[in-house]
Amino acid sequence: MRLADLETPALLLDAPKMRANIARMNAAMKRHGVALRPHLKTAKSAEVAREMTAGWSGAVTVSTLKEAEQFFAAGYRDILYAVGIAPNKLAHAAELVRRGATLTLILDSVAAAEAVAALGRAEGLRLPVLIEIDSDRHRAGVAPNDTALLTAIADALAEGAELRGVMTHGGGSYGATSAEELAAHAELERSGAMTAAEALRAAGHACPVISVGSTPTALFARDLTGVTEVRVGVYVFMDLVMAALGVCAVDDIAASVLTSVIGHQPERGWLIVDAGWMALSRDRGLDTNGYGLVAGHDDLIVVSANQEHGIIADRHGRPLDLARFPIGTLLRILPNHVCATAAQHDRYHVLDGSDAIAQVWPRFGGW
Amino acid sequence: MRLADLETPALLLDAPKMRANIARMNAAMKRHGVALRPHLKTAKSAEVAREMTAGWSGAVTVSTLKEAEQFFAAGYRDILYAVGIAPNKLAHAAELVRRGATLTLILDSVAAAEAVAALGRAEGLRLPVLIEIDSDRHRAGVAPNDTALLTAIADALAEGAELRGVMTHGGGSYGATSAEELAAHAELERSGAMTAAEALRAAGHACPVISVGSTPTALFARDLTGVTEVRVGVYVFMDLVMAALGVCAVDDIAASVLTSVIGHQPERGWLIVDAGWMALSRDRGLDTNGYGLVAGHDDLIVVSANQEHGIIADRHGRPLDLARFPIGTLLRILPNHVCATAAQHDRYHVLDGSDAIAQVWPRFGGW
Repeated sequence: MRLADLETPALLLDAPKMRANIARMNAAMKRHGVALRPHLKTAKSAEVAREMTAGWSGAVTVSTLKEAEQFFAAGYRDILYAVGIAPNKLAHAAELVRRGATLTLILDSVAAAEAVAALGRAEGLRLPVLIEIDSDRHRAGVAPNDTALLTAIADALAEGAELRGVMTHGGGSYGATSAEELAAHAELERSGAMTAAEALRAAGHACPVISVGSTPTALFARDLTGVTEVRVGVYVFMDLVMAALGVCAVDDIAASVLTSVIGHQPERGWLIVDAGWMALSRDRGLDTNGYGLVAGHDDLIVVSANQEHGIIADRHGRPLDLARFPIGTLLRILPNHVCATAAQHDRYHVLDGSDAIAQVWPRFGGW
Repeated sequence: MRLADLETPALLLDAPKMRANIARMNAAMKRHGVALRPHLKTAKSAEVAREMTAGWSGAVTVSTLKEAEQFFAAGYRDILYAVGIAPNKLAHAAELVRRGATLTLILDSVAAAEAVAALGRAEGLRLPVLIEIDSDRHRAGVAPNDTALLTAIADALAEGAELRGVMTHGGGSYGATSAEELAAHAELERSGAMTAAEALRAAGHACPVISVGSTPTALFARDLTGVTEVRVGVYVFMDLVMAALGVCAVDDIAASVLTSVIGHQPERGWLIVDAGWMALSRDRGLDTNGYGLVAGHDDLIVVSANQEHGIIADRHGRPLDLARFPIGTLLRILPNHVCATAAQHDRYHVLDGSDAIAQVWPRFGGW
């Protein structure tokens, strides 16, 4: 089967580009002497996970218990569930542990710590826990210097859970505008996590795990001293946001959506294609490429998207020469944010350097 | 099972509200004496489809061949595929017809008409076709007064397909700001379709089908003379965009996302919840409610969303009284655009007037 045999829209994965992205991240982590714990929320595919974990211990990160279940079924045992635990998920988490998973939870409040410890005492389990640290004030977590809260959480965990350390995610790095700023965000992650860990250690709590990460900070960090593992996910495919941040080149983007031209609007110089927001997602990234960029056509973007329709136009408003794009023309749309775009699809059509579909890899969604 | 037993995030469907929305649309169509051909792209569920088609002929509208397949398997035969046909889907469409579907295609170009007719001649099929009309210049379709193109398409179809009529979708109505404007958009749809149909009839083409529709125009139309069927989908659940247009009340919205409070940021007065864009979609609607509105709390909106995290804050920036929302508190988020939000989920948890889950209805995605 070749590209021209697919029904559109369809998610494509360029395997050589994916492997180059993986090799680049692996080399960066080896250079720092730090372990990689890939975040599988971007890929949600056992086949992609195998590529991301090759050469590492098999430790992985997930964002849902559905991912934990799926990757546990695929043979992964050391799983970090990197979203603050909700009480209604505790029974499910405990059940995964009873089936043999080493499922590490994260939390940032005494209330959540007490719920985890209570479950541990009730079930005779000691779930491993990391305290989430807010290293850049962008979302969740304990402030790195809030020693009182850190130690209160550690104390609440003491009977019934196992405090393993701290974790943080430098999501603020997505707003960086230079390599200098990306490096500074990486240092914010590292120093925030280290400050919190030192406070816990000073209070007598072993804190062996220092877990940090985001694709931009991991690739631009200058010093990861003290960090024991890095969590990253987007790097495997890359996307237009990463390219805009200078983290990769547009040509490094390994995932795209294949679409067909289904109509023309000659008066307005538009192409109508069969990839709308259902295929592309509603993610506008940094708001510079509409709903995606047409691969190989730097000025063609998806300016508007309905459920199953996209409108492609010149980014500067020049009318397109529609004769160059007859009905049925196949175009590839590069994603603004690949986590969101890939999430709209249930399989990868894997290309291995030609336009032949070498393999089809399923991917899952949901919770 | 009750709400408190669900793992969050989870898609909820309030069945009494859904049934009231359906009854309202049915009454509007009966008043006009026009047939309803529900658009199932919003619901993507056989159970919801049964509610929407009850009392009508069973004619339905879909936006993908996957929907056509699923609803054909659920017993529907008269299916309008309301996205311009791409050449790479023709073989699949023909296969559905050979299995017994009356699958009507739409198109707006001579090139697409020639492709459909060529397939018809090759396969000995006469696929029914509607010509798409651009009644409000918002997306695809032939201009209503472009008689030359309309008749050229009709001529291209003559050998190998069956021209059944015209269709249009007044998507521009989503920009209306009053009942007057919504009524004017409805009249644009009607008059655009009628103008095109009369041109085709004058050229000797039977044009029995005049198909129009969008939820706002269907509910605000004053006169549907000449229209033979109306296609609508969002009405079944309604959403914040519809409420902002004045098409429904916020309290009519039948679908919501159940989420748990998983953290607090006391300094910033934020709640962190476990519904991010994966559960809510990235659709910002009219950009007035962030990524969704907390049901029962008019000033609480999802101001920011990551993949599995939402940040809930006061829309006016006042810090929240976090003690009112302890860790584990369940909140329901009303969707900006329910087609996009529902698409992120694989099932409906159906409530029938209490907090007990009366039923679980599967929904599908993909192509």
